[in-house]
Amino acid sequence: MRNQFFSKFSSALALGVLLAFGGQAQAQTDPLPSWNEGATKQAIVDFVKVTTTEGSEQFVPPAERIATFDQDGTLWVEQPMYSQVMYILESVPALVKAKPELAKETPFSTVLEVLKGDHAAIKKLTEKDLFKLLAATSTGMSEEAFSAEAKKWLAAARDPRWKRPYTELTYLPMQELLAYLRANGYKTYIVTGGGQDFVRTYAEKVYGIPPEQVVGSALDTKYTYGTDGKPLLIKEPKLLLNNNNDGKAKDINLMIGRRPFAAFGNSTGDQQMLEYTKAGDGARLSVLLLHDDAKREYAYGPAQGLPATKVGEFTQPLYDEAVKQGWTVISMKNDWNQVFSFEP
Amino acid sequence: MRNQFFSKFSSALALGVLLAFGGQAQAQTDPLPSWNEGATKQAIVDFVKVTTTEGSEQFVPPAERIATFDQDGTLWVEQPMYSQVMYILESVPALVKAKPELAKETPFSTVLEVLKGDHAAIKKLTEKDLFKLLAATSTGMSEEAFSAEAKKWLAAARDPRWKRPYTELTYLPMQELLAYLRANGYKTYIVTGGGQDFVRTYAEKVYGIPPEQVVGSALDTKYTYGTDGKPLLIKEPKLLLNNNNDGKAKDINLMIGRRPFAAFGNSTGDQQMLEYTKAGDGARLSVLLLHDDAKREYAYGPAQGLPATKVGEFTQPLYDEAVKQGWTVISMKNDWNQVFSFEP
Repeated sequence: MRNQFFSKFSSALALGVLLAFGGQAQAQTDPLPSWNEGATKQAIVDFVKVTTTEGSEQFVPPAERIATFDQDGTLWVEQPMYSQVMYILESVPALVKAKPELAKETPFSTVLEVLKGDHAAIKKLTEKDLFKLLAATSTGMSEEAFSAEAKKWLAAARDPRWKRPYTELTYLPMQELLAYLRANGYKTYIVTGGGQDFVRTYAEKVYGIPPEQVVGSALDTKYTYGTDGKPLLIKEPKLLLNNNNDGKAKDINLMIGRRPFAAFGNSTGDQQMLEYTKAGDGARLSVLLLHDDAKREYAYGPAQGLPATKVGEFTQPLYDEAVKQGWTVISMKNDWNQVFSFEP
Repeated sequence: MRNQFFSKFSSALALGVLLAFGGQAQAQTDPLPSWNEGATKQAIVDFVKVTTTEGSEQFVPPAERIATFDQDGTLWVEQPMYSQVMYILESVPALVKAKPELAKETPFSTVLEVLKGDHAAIKKLTEKDLFKLLAATSTGMSEEAFSAEAKKWLAAARDPRWKRPYTELTYLPMQELLAYLRANGYKTYIVTGGGQDFVRTYAEKVYGIPPEQVVGSALDTKYTYGTDGKPLLIKEPKLLLNNNNDGKAKDINLMIGRRPFAAFGNSTGDQQMLEYTKAGDGARLSVLLLHDDAKREYAYGPAQGLPATKVGEFTQPLYDEAVKQGWTVISMKNDWNQVFSFEP
């Protein structure tokens, strides 16, 4: 009897434990609720599982868990224009006020036309013009002064479509993904073609990504002393790192020194980062975000049969490479049940 | 009576708590046992206390706790020659074997003389020669191939005085300091004039500092594809970051994006890093290590009245600046009761 009693007791206990665990499993909330069930979400969840389960053949030690994210068009909206380009354009009037002679000089005169409403005029701006504008608005000042200016602008600026601060236009599913990867021991980095000091002014607040985990394009600086004798780092009009295309792989090596296990991008500027990531040993996840949702966001790139634009260049050859190399392609339209936290 | 009982009881309880706490405090082991009691150790402990105690006016949020360390001469021995220079010199014979025509060409012929025992010949090598040797031994290969070569050399190489691997010649008090700072929420970085990819091959094992927390001098790389179609980053003979002098402050801004709260160095190459650190708001700790212990290590620099050597340049003006700016100066002889873990 005693044995039987214990046997029954232990069965009941076992059943209780099972029920408890089952209940717990069901009670566990989905870490990616804005993602629809399907191959894309499954590829992400499977990757995290095999790389973080001890004993798995593809287990990755926590110290090596690096995931890199492009920003514009991958973590937040990049249309109709990169937010930093908007910052540069909208900094021109103050510049012209201080130096009125610039009002009649290109590219400053072109920018004034654009800001007066002639949006088509923006097409006149060449790469060289943009660098001239960047140099005029974002150099010759200390890093601290630049950071203060950028923060002031970001607090006041509104995007043309949603009339919200740019910092609210992040994709909810990507925010969930950042949190999910971090909860699984991944260190998340932004690897952006944008200016790294610009992105560093808000990345911690907006994405929970600290300055030292933001890799981006960078101007050189000059070490000098202020009138108070204190050292200053002055931004120089000289490009030190062009963090686009091959620059992304090179700068990941330079600034992180480890090959990522997962990388996320949305344009030809991310191609080498995705290639470099995928070429590593073991399980690697390379992901492209396809903007195919004209209603909730924008539609551009190959799925729409549209020519690639300068902003957010997602070309047919890039799409073909993704398929060939076994990268995962997110369809914004089909894979996400919600795009922004402020919209249902 | 009851009140009296409780009063006695609570007194006893209070006494017990006090004893328990006292015992606990005594049982707490000193985190810096290799440091002699004195002003230097006290300055470090006080700094950690005021920056990590909640409610302290100089409290630093954990995310902002950055401490940067020069490597050669600050974390490990730099005399008679930087270990990476030894690596470059000792890589020359294999190079000459592959390309025999180099044996009669300077600077390769000079290096062969040095390795044959003519140590004075090393003085013939100019900065330009050293860069030529670096280019010949450490470029034109992938980052992975370089890393494998460097690891192989480090495992076999022995320093001339202690006949030990270079990686054992770290200062025990500095290892304790790294651990102490990390235990108090500081993120520890190496900021070295040496090649960052060279230092990254061992920093995690030797100091517990991961690759992404090693900032150093860096050559440019080229993104290309191997015969298997896989991407490769090839080291180029072009200096991208010269992480010495003003380069240290500039590269801290570039790669970390935060001003350190504590910085440690030992030579003129660290001056701007120490200035930049000390110039920040709140409590900041800038520290110079003075090599004044000819018996246990080496003595060089101002305290010895010796001229600064090219290696480990600690000049009188640097010492004067330290005094003027309120930096802490470690006397190896007086502040450390043990220098290496392998020596008593």
